[in-house]
Amino acid sequence: METIEVPAREGRGLRLDVGARFRVVDVEGKQCGDLFAFSTDDVTEYASAEHTRVFNGNLFPRLGQPFVTNRRRPILTFDEDHTPGRHDMLVAACDPTRFRLLGVEGWHPSCQENLQTVMAGFGYQRVEVPQPINLFTNIPVLEGGTIDWQPALTAPGDWVAFRVELPSFVVLCSCAQDILPINDRNPTGLRLEVLD
Amino acid sequence: METIEVPAREGRGLRLDVGARFRVVDVEGKQCGDLFAFSTDDVTEYASAEHTRVFNGNLFPRLGQPFVTNRRRPILTFDEDHTPGRHDMLVAACDPTRFRLLGVEGWHPSCQENLQTVMAGFGYQRVEVPQPINLFTNIPVLEGGTIDWQPALTAPGDWVAFRVELPSFVVLCSCAQDILPINDRNPTGLRLEVLD
Repeated sequence: METIEVPAREGRGLRLDVGARFRVVDVEGKQCGDLFAFSTDDVTEYASAEHTRVFNGNLFPRLGQPFVTNRRRPILTFDEDHTPGRHDMLVAACDPTRFRLLGVEGWHPSCQENLQTVMAGFGYQRVEVPQPINLFTNIPVLEGGTIDWQPALTAPGDWVAFRVELPSFVVLCSCAQDILPINDRNPTGLRLEVLD
Repeated sequence: METIEVPAREGRGLRLDVGARFRVVDVEGKQCGDLFAFSTDDVTEYASAEHTRVFNGNLFPRLGQPFVTNRRRPILTFDEDHTPGRHDMLVAACDPTRFRLLGVEGWHPSCQENLQTVMAGFGYQRVEVPQPINLFTNIPVLEGGTIDWQPALTAPGDWVAFRVELPSFVVLCSCAQDILPINDRNPTGLRLEVLD
């Protein structure tokens, strides 16, 4: 069983074949994970939030439902959820501009840069940055469509599992957000475990 | 004042400079419009739903709020709304695969193909297909995150207006969806008018 530790504020990835199962563990709790999946055959095909919402008819897949690509093909299935069940698929990955707009001066690590670094490691210097699958991320939709950034509800060791439906580069970023409270203003690491 | 008729199931576009204002008119009512905006300086920068949600903190901009790009720069501002106020930014553009999955045999026009045709006319044979700004589109979010496809609420002549904040290719598609009821199963045309 392959295990990859994803340090706080960093990203890691691996290539997985159809039928592989993996889990994402929130090691210390209250840590968001930005998950991405790209087809290894053509990285312009990737897990797409807006196509997944249409495919399933809900804002986030329920257990047993797929995440589909921008070509409407299942790429991951949501297989197990050992968390309070709060995840998000509405907000973009954090990036350098996001932190600048939040008042940060100078460089700040971000999920966008971490994704780009991991994909460059697979040989892709330039990829589209899809809207992530924001695991453990607590972005409630309030009356009138307002969205809010709340601390993750996860406890140490909470986890989710996925089945791979297309040969994929799977990338997981431990979200670097420390200005807003989604990671309890204390970014920590995640663990990516291949189950079989 | 430039006026472009967008026939049912088709798309049209135009190049607009900063400060231009335009409106989109639902001529016959109950017709959804897929609106896209790409920076003319670099078409890999475009109006992005997931960045716009973050920028404004809501599912769809309110009057006076911007639509921002995937680089978090305002590209359009939502200037006027003479409709019941129901619009969407959650669902992907319809495409050939969407219609195949809905049981259609053979070719069916779609907003994705219409966007690609318009952008090819501007000299861009290949563009990313962003999640559209789905004007007049009635996709309520129900309890538990279920989303539903309901007929548009617009009456004949209802309209919205925008101000251009970055030099843009603006593309409007009269949504070709006739299997689900969002266009009252009777796609009709829209009008794109440059105001000043």
